[in-house]
Amino acid sequence: MTMLLALRGVTIETWRDALAAAAPDLPVVVAGEACDPATIRYALVWKPQPGLLADLPNLQAIFSLGAGVDHLMGDPTLPGAPVVRVVDPDLTGRMTEWVVLQVLMHHRRQRLYDRQQRDRVWRDLSQPAAREIRVGVMGLGVLGLDAAKALMALGFDVAGWSRTVKGELDFPAFHGEAGLDLFLARTDILVVLLPLTPDTRGLLDGALLAKLAQGGRLGGPVLINAGRGGLQVETDILAALQAGTLVGGSLDVFQTEPLPADSPLWADDRLVITPHVAAESDPMAIGRYVASQIAGFERGEPLQNVVDRSRGY
Amino acid sequence: MTMLLALRGVTIETWRDALAAAAPDLPVVVAGEACDPATIRYALVWKPQPGLLADLPNLQAIFSLGAGVDHLMGDPTLPGAPVVRVVDPDLTGRMTEWVVLQVLMHHRRQRLYDRQQRDRVWRDLSQPAAREIRVGVMGLGVLGLDAAKALMALGFDVAGWSRTVKGELDFPAFHGEAGLDLFLARTDILVVLLPLTPDTRGLLDGALLAKLAQGGRLGGPVLINAGRGGLQVETDILAALQAGTLVGGSLDVFQTEPLPADSPLWADDRLVITPHVAAESDPMAIGRYVASQIAGFERGEPLQNVVDRSRGY
Ligand SMILES: NC(=O)c1ccc[n+]([C@@H]2O[C@H](COP(=O)([O-])OP(=O)(O)OC[C@H]3O[C@@H](n4cnc5c(N)ncnc54)[C@H](OP(=O)(O)O)[C@@H]3O)[C@@H](O)[C@H]2O)c1
Ligand SMILES: NC(=O)c1ccc[n+]([C@@H]2O[C@H](COP(=O)([O-])OP(=O)(O)OC[C@H]3O[C@@H](n4cnc5c(N)ncnc54)[C@H](OP(=O)(O)O)[C@@H]3O)[C@@H](O)[C@H]2O)c1
Repeated sequence: MTMLLALRGVTIETWRDALAAAAPDLPVVVAGEACDPATIRYALVWKPQPGLLADLPNLQAIFSLGAGVDHLMGDPTLPGAPVVRVVDPDLTGRMTEWVVLQVLMHHRRQRLYDRQQRDRVWRDLSQPAAREIRVGVMGLGVLGLDAAKALMALGFDVAGWSRTVKGELDFPAFHGEAGLDLFLARTDILVVLLPLTPDTRGLLDGALLAKLAQGGRLGGPVLINAGRGGLQVETDILAALQAGTLVGGSLDVFQTEPLPADSPLWADDRLVITPHVAAESDPMAIGRYVASQIAGFERGEPLQNVVDRSRGY
Repeated sequence: MTMLLALRGVTIETWRDALAAAAPDLPVVVAGEACDPATIRYALVWKPQPGLLADLPNLQAIFSLGAGVDHLMGDPTLPGAPVVRVVDPDLTGRMTEWVVLQVLMHHRRQRLYDRQQRDRVWRDLSQPAAREIRVGVMGLGVLGLDAAKALMALGFDVAGWSRTVKGELDFPAFHGEAGLDLFLARTDILVVLLPLTPDTRGLLDGALLAKLAQGGRLGGPVLINAGRGGLQVETDILAALQAGTLVGGSLDVFQTEPLPADSPLWADDRLVITPHVAAESDPMAIGRYVASQIAGFERGEPLQNVVDRSRGY
């Protein structure tokens, strides 16, 4: 019973240590190290080399290091073993912190006050109350629901959008393509917490942005995206800012990451740019999460938070 | 039954209109206009000329335009009529928005990310979870309690400090001089929502700042003040930043307002400077508040939110 670590773009030692702390008896092998493929029962992966998981005859489960699994779904050789994603209150809380911060930065005109501070200007800017701002949350999963709840508690006028219909929410919810235009038309600040799938790729384009509420108490709509960069069309975002049909935004994710130094996104101070840090996974928490899922599975319990391969999330 | 409007530093027409909308039958006279002092039964004031209210034989109540009454308490000729301050859910919500925004800006290192954006640098900064940050709220009145609740909902490790002992709070609370040092020693981010009184003037000085938690997950303590500028000693704040015993701050209020253009506070980008806009009074809401208090009082009901003149708040 060995765990294969196939991680790119992160510090492997950190994750090996976290797993060792949470599951001291679990043998771990790092991708590239010599080992008998038949001994591999689990894999913990982040952006693994396509094909890497193809020939593991005894693979029982593939754990994704993060909440999103788009880094895996593009691999046509991905074996049929269940893919388990991270659902962790620590990660959820961090995302909600980031979303609340970004919504408030636009709502409270922080970037304008920043500029006034640099210019030593004392001037109050007109300030709507939270209840006058319609926030639309795209994606009502683990992250979207938690962010929506926090924004409602601050008084924002929240609505949501998901793929399937939801019952029992404290706020108006729309779903599917049929509900999209109505949802966008009542949205001043759009918060995107969608997964990247074939259905959502490129969704945040000029046509969609043009359907957001014009006017409104912030002078126009604001786009906040912490889902995935592949959801957005950056040239369209820049064009909408240029045209004034978008008045600001906060982006944590980008079509190319790291965001290239020559991207014009950096230079527009109506955009807040953060380097894919909205909700970092805490290795110790994820180590414990993976260890407890494996322990349960070995006792015959079902795996939790298994991705639906046909939906892609 | 006439209402005297004695307002300085605000647009009188706005307030006259708001009162007219809320109490169409209430005669209003603006300070300086000719009138019989004996007809004045109420006054709505903001930073009134000292002495202005002294000779009004039938004055029943003095309404302060805002939540703070320090603008009145310094006037030794202030008559004995009850002073009513503003308590309004709209104003409270706005203050909580500002406090949450400022706490998150420091917690999530927004000013460092701002700098990285300007420099087109893609680098993630180490990020504690909210529960690892001890926020200390000074002043557990209407505003402090609401801010504390919102910060707790986001996961921060909140404690509070007030003059008198509080029961039934969801977080640890300290009180009085005896509790101050313990409170400060467990505080990474200090949020000040105190009134300005003879007891609190100059409280936020070098000696107090030196008692805040050193080390901590933000590398040192942060000061957030939206109470009154008279609470803080700005030269001591600058010295603490210089010495590294304070790592950041957000100030909405200042010893001199408007903050003079030559103040060195503007230039330190570890400080967020806003021009006394944390919680603006909504004239329509305040107009309705004053009108309904007067209607109740005329029916024989007691006035609400009357200031205790001996405490000064
Ligand atoms: N920036 C960061 O640091 C960071 C960190 C973690 C996660 N993320 C991103 O956040 C995403 C969301 O995470 P989560 O845990 O909340 O995911 P989740 O629980 O799987 O929720 C996904 C939500 O998106 C909705 N959705 C999916 N496809 C849709 C479509 N075609 N049309 C409309 N709605 C659609 C789903 O609708 P239904 O409810 O109808 O199924 C669901 O409400 C992740 O996939 C990841 O990309 C980013
Ligand atoms: N920046 C802005 O835009 C803005 C807007 C509105 C208000 N404000 C300021 O915010 C202040 C607070 O408003 P509020 O409505 O929350 O006031 P409040 O309800 O009267 O509460 C004041 C709090 O401060 C505590 N306190 C007073 N003197 C103290 C002392 N010497 N030591 C320890 N604690 C002391 C009180 O303790 P006890 O509970 O024991 O009495 C109480 O908890 C206002 O006075 C005003 O200056 C600023």
